[in-house]
Amino acid sequence: MIKKIGVLTSGGDSPGMNAAIRAVARVGALEGLEVYGIYNGYKGMVDGDIELLTRDHLSDVLDRGGTFLGSARLPEFKEIEVRKKAVEQLQKHGIEAVVVIGGDGSYRGAAALTKMGINCIAIPGTIDNDITSTDSTIGFDTALNTVVDAVDKLRDTSNSHHRCSVVEVMGNRCGDLALFSGIACGAEIIVTAQTGFDEIEVLDALKEFDISKKKKHAIVIISEKITDVESFARKVSQFTGFSGRATVLGHVQRGGSPTPNDRVLASRMGEKAVDLLLQGIGGQCVGIQKGEVVGVPIEEALNIPRVSRKDLKNLFDRLV
Amino acid sequence: MIKKIGVLTSGGDSPGMNAAIRAVARVGALEGLEVYGIYNGYKGMVDGDIELLTRDHLSDVLDRGGTFLGSARLPEFKEIEVRKKAVEQLQKHGIEAVVVIGGDGSYRGAAALTKMGINCIAIPGTIDNDITSTDSTIGFDTALNTVVDAVDKLRDTSNSHHRCSVVEVMGNRCGDLALFSGIACGAEIIVTAQTGFDEIEVLDALKEFDISKKKKHAIVIISEKITDVESFARKVSQFTGFSGRATVLGHVQRGGSPTPNDRVLASRMGEKAVDLLLQGIGGQCVGIQKGEVVGVPIEEALNIPRVSRKDLKNLFDRLV
Amino acid sequence: MIKKIGVLTSGGDSPGMNAAIRAVARVGALEGLEVYGIYNGYKGMVDGDIELLTRDHLSDVLDRGGTFLGSARLPEFKEIEVRKKAVEQLQKHGIEAVVVIGGDGSYRGAAALTKMGINCIAIPGTIDNDITSTDSTIGFDTALNTVVDAVDKLRDTSNSHHRCSVVEVMGNRCGDLALFSGIACGAEIIVTAQTGFDEIEVLDALKEFDISKKKKHAIVIISEKITDVESFARKVSQFTGFSGRATVLGHVQRGGSPTPNDRVLASRMGEKAVDLLLQGIGGQCVGIQKGEVVGVPIEEALNIPRVSRKDLKNLFDRLV
Amino acid sequence: MIKKIGVLTSGGDSPGMNAAIRAVARVGALEGLEVYGIYNGYKGMVDGDIELLTRDHLSDVLDRGGTFLGSARLPEFKEIEVRKKAVEQLQKHGIEAVVVIGGDGSYRGAAALTKMGINCIAIPGTIDNDITSTDSTIGFDTALNTVVDAVDKLRDTSNSHHRCSVVEVMGNRCGDLALFSGIACGAEIIVTAQTGFDEIEVLDALKEFDISKKKKHAIVIISEKITDVESFARKVSQFTGFSGRATVLGHVQRGGSPTPNDRVLASRMGEKAVDLLLQGIGGQCVGIQKGEVVGVPIEEALNIPRVSRKDLKNLFDRLV
Repeated sequence: MIKKIGVLTSGGDSPGMNAAIRAVARVGALEGLEVYGIYNGYKGMVDGDIELLTRDHLSDVLDRGGTFLGSARLPEFKEIEVRKKAVEQLQKHGIEAVVVIGGDGSYRGAAALTKMGINCIAIPGTIDNDITSTDSTIGFDTALNTVVDAVDKLRDTSNSHHRCSVVEVMGNRCGDLALFSGIACGAEIIVTAQTGFDEIEVLDALKEFDISKKKKHAIVIISEKITDVESFARKVSQFTGFSGRATVLGHVQRGGSPTPNDRVLASRMGEKAVDLLLQGIGGQCVGIQKGEVVGVPIEEALNIPRVSRKDLKNLFDRLV
Repeated sequence: MIKKIGVLTSGGDSPGMNAAIRAVARVGALEGLEVYGIYNGYKGMVDGDIELLTRDHLSDVLDRGGTFLGSARLPEFKEIEVRKKAVEQLQKHGIEAVVVIGGDGSYRGAAALTKMGINCIAIPGTIDNDITSTDSTIGFDTALNTVVDAVDKLRDTSNSHHRCSVVEVMGNRCGDLALFSGIACGAEIIVTAQTGFDEIEVLDALKEFDISKKKKHAIVIISEKITDVESFARKVSQFTGFSGRATVLGHVQRGGSPTPNDRVLASRMGEKAVDLLLQGIGGQCVGIQKGEVVGVPIEEALNIPRVSRKDLKNLFDRLV
Repeated sequence: MIKKIGVLTSGGDSPGMNAAIRAVARVGALEGLEVYGIYNGYKGMVDGDIELLTRDHLSDVLDRGGTFLGSARLPEFKEIEVRKKAVEQLQKHGIEAVVVIGGDGSYRGAAALTKMGINCIAIPGTIDNDITSTDSTIGFDTALNTVVDAVDKLRDTSNSHHRCSVVEVMGNRCGDLALFSGIACGAEIIVTAQTGFDEIEVLDALKEFDISKKKKHAIVIISEKITDVESFARKVSQFTGFSGRATVLGHVQRGGSPTPNDRVLASRMGEKAVDLLLQGIGGQCVGIQKGEVVGVPIEEALNIPRVSRKDLKNLFDRLV
Repeated sequence: MIKKIGVLTSGGDSPGMNAAIRAVARVGALEGLEVYGIYNGYKGMVDGDIELLTRDHLSDVLDRGGTFLGSARLPEFKEIEVRKKAVEQLQKHGIEAVVVIGGDGSYRGAAALTKMGINCIAIPGTIDNDITSTDSTIGFDTALNTVVDAVDKLRDTSNSHHRCSVVEVMGNRCGDLALFSGIACGAEIIVTAQTGFDEIEVLDALKEFDISKKKKHAIVIISEKITDVESFARKVSQFTGFSGRATVLGHVQRGGSPTPNDRVLASRMGEKAVDLLLQGIGGQCVGIQKGEVVGVPIEEALNIPRVSRKDLKNLFDRLV
């Protein structure tokens, strides 16, 4: 049986990563493993920036955003030479298996390492909810709370000024942050990669909210990288009765103390990852599907199509 | 097809009830229904305290805790004579069907009314998560956030004083609030109706946390109605190295702006309830099961056994 | 003695305005006055958009951001003809005196109306803390909390990525939001109209934080309208070891449930305004100076120089 | 000039203590001092539980509640023998002066040590705002926010049920938490050591709120140690039209991330304490008076009478 495992966080950080690291370390220790923290993602793996995790590392991290292990992107990890160095470093420390917490970019690295003899299990840590092998990623719920909190505040002030707030939220490929926050905040319009964006159509809809529906304010939530929200807000002022104001929520969405949901989800996923490694399994990623925590082969996971949100988009439309 | 429906909230209030009322009213209106608010639960039904809901009632309620319709308990509603009066009042207003938002006490009333010719759909609104026909009730997520927020604060101060915080949370029959918050907060011990309570055993465990594990503080989370937490905290001071302090979170857990999760869940459930009524269906309750919003006959729903939380309890134990 | 007074909110809204309106209305009613709400600032005064305030208007507004009376800017109010129309409308309603809640733009209107025979008292409602006749404006404390909450979140994620967060906060003429949040968040650098901005110097300081002081992240807080934070963040990435990311907090800072401080301050100021009017005084503005709520003639107030923040800036420098 | 100073936290902890420790350590280090952390208050001083503070101790503490130095009460510190031991320990470490952060109990210790040759400066760290030599203590603003947040939640649910919430808050000798939160939350009644408590009178007032004023709910805020709120709530149910519910907020009020106000106040006070020590001054306590941070001889400070809150109590009465 394995004796030493590593854990790292990779890609953009997300609230709850610390809770996942803690679960890996605590459950691992209970099962007799030595658990090593690998700093700054795959970069620290290559550089040998590796340290045994003790109880001291783990106290007071559960409720902290970010990742105390640090995170970094290392595009060169695609190169076999770089990965070989990483494997050498792991072997030097006697680390036989690794838990990788991050977005789907990190998944490929985990799959590649597994093929090179280091069993890896990936855990979905990203606020974008854009990993199709899990119903929910670690950090999505916290980011959603941050967005809704901000939009609730914008509504206070929009309401006072007959204003249209145009809010850019994270999540490009996956519009979940926009869609869920749109329903939760009672937004008037949402625009995501899934809905598409027809500027004229949105402006016309806003005119109608102003004139026919006599709304005192309007909220438009738009996923990032779809349009320039500053310039769109100017058009709102120009072509509708509302005064348009843009807000780009930005990196604030990545921070904050994780919600209970994210802490519990991260804990469950960290536990599952260790259990899979203990069974000698590698090359899988952990997901939550219909309430169950499951392991899915990474290659398979990366090809699962995105779930349709037609029902929720339809609900959004019926509530406006 | 039906033309007029009513909506009421019953039993203890929970955050998200307003979002559910709004969804019922908005979706109903879109489908051509007149939607009436019935004030103060079944009591208002009997008294004829009923009013057509307009857009004005619904603006600015989505993010508000409580229920703007008010809620009340009416034990006499079990009596046929009382229910007959209620039906008369509904008929006077031309109300053909009703959406009831509340705990399982309210479900029985909804089933009984359906038998008397008024199709009713029940929606689970309670912070206790104690309704077995749904994976999650409206308000549970918000209450969980409130509990975790409070316990995070207690940990700050327990940590500074080598203290053991004994925290009583709501949820008697169902220990979910204690269990989920225990995992989310990194509590040392949880006590629920499901775990049982052996005082000596808990005190011994605390001694071990103090002496062998050298913990600087400890958190014990206990479901309500299991023991007197004040007197238990005194015993902690007496028999362990920790200074015990009791906190009863109480009704604060019922309030607060609903989380995004609760707002979305309430909106989905409100939509489903109207859709069922439009199909001529009554006597069902709405639930979310494995991510799907479903309708379940109330009689059947009340007999579904509670789901086991062994996995989560086991996770809790592995993380301490 | 006067019998009828009006109250309006003008300029940008700020959290706590509702609490001030409520205090004016409640204290006024207790003193036997009829208190009228004037909607959308001076615009509603000119248009006669005026309504008697009842208890119903005032329940549940104390903890709400924004202003339920709405706010608008009306530059034309500088013109005597426009002001004459406003006075006519007030006379039509029998309104003898007005409380104006807003920024210093609104103060001039209040002074002008007073000269035309309508006693006006101004209350400082703005998040910018840029009114020199008061130590604190209504909304500043709430905005400061919002900024600090956001920067705390940014630090989580900056910390994980060796990043420099460049944060634009509101307040142009007055750098208090930047200065106070900089101290409260442990920012590395603050830039305000008072400190000035030397790009090279700031970049050099960041290099030093990175190299000599080995900081894992850096926070730069900049008042609005000083520089383009997006382009500055790019320079941070280019010229220092940090990866620079810009965040423009924007209108979120204007919203949110007012803090206890702002609610109490607003209540005290609303009370004072009514008391001044009852004494037959007009043309004054209310301020809090060294803990005392005082009335100051508006003409005088507008010429008070800004208080120096050298002590606090010095403290900031000593803490970095 | 002095070379080595110590810093400790004593008595009940309060949010912002960490910010004060950080300011002492940072400003001290900048001025060339070695700053030592003394753990667990005077107890650690006697036991020699003392450690040099480095940058590592201070990163990430600014936004944390509690005190990372720990706190404890040591009644024996009144005894000269115990204090002598403490002085010996300090001398062993070469510590010439100490900053003591805590309530007025700690002040006496600081005064006594100063007389024994160790210059001490005391900083007011307590949520109760009961130190008369300062307008505000570190932690009061955060506790006030916690109370108001909780009462806002209780109002949601009280509102839904025609309920009277009876809320016990901290602060016995000093009713500021009750008074300020009462104004901020729009409570119906407040009871403090300063107002006194006449049960019949309060019940009569509640009856009037119910019957004459037709209030849908009522909030009563009571300082701790004045009456048994559980039993009083039962009387409310018995003798008025409201259903009474008691909530004891308890130790939650001591925790939480400090507000910006408390962080800035703590930073200013920590700076002042070091500056006084550098000037060779001891036996003083730091306070904020009318916006100025000042030093006051401890003996004098302990005899300053409590400021009257008649104005604020009067405001409260006018707003109900």
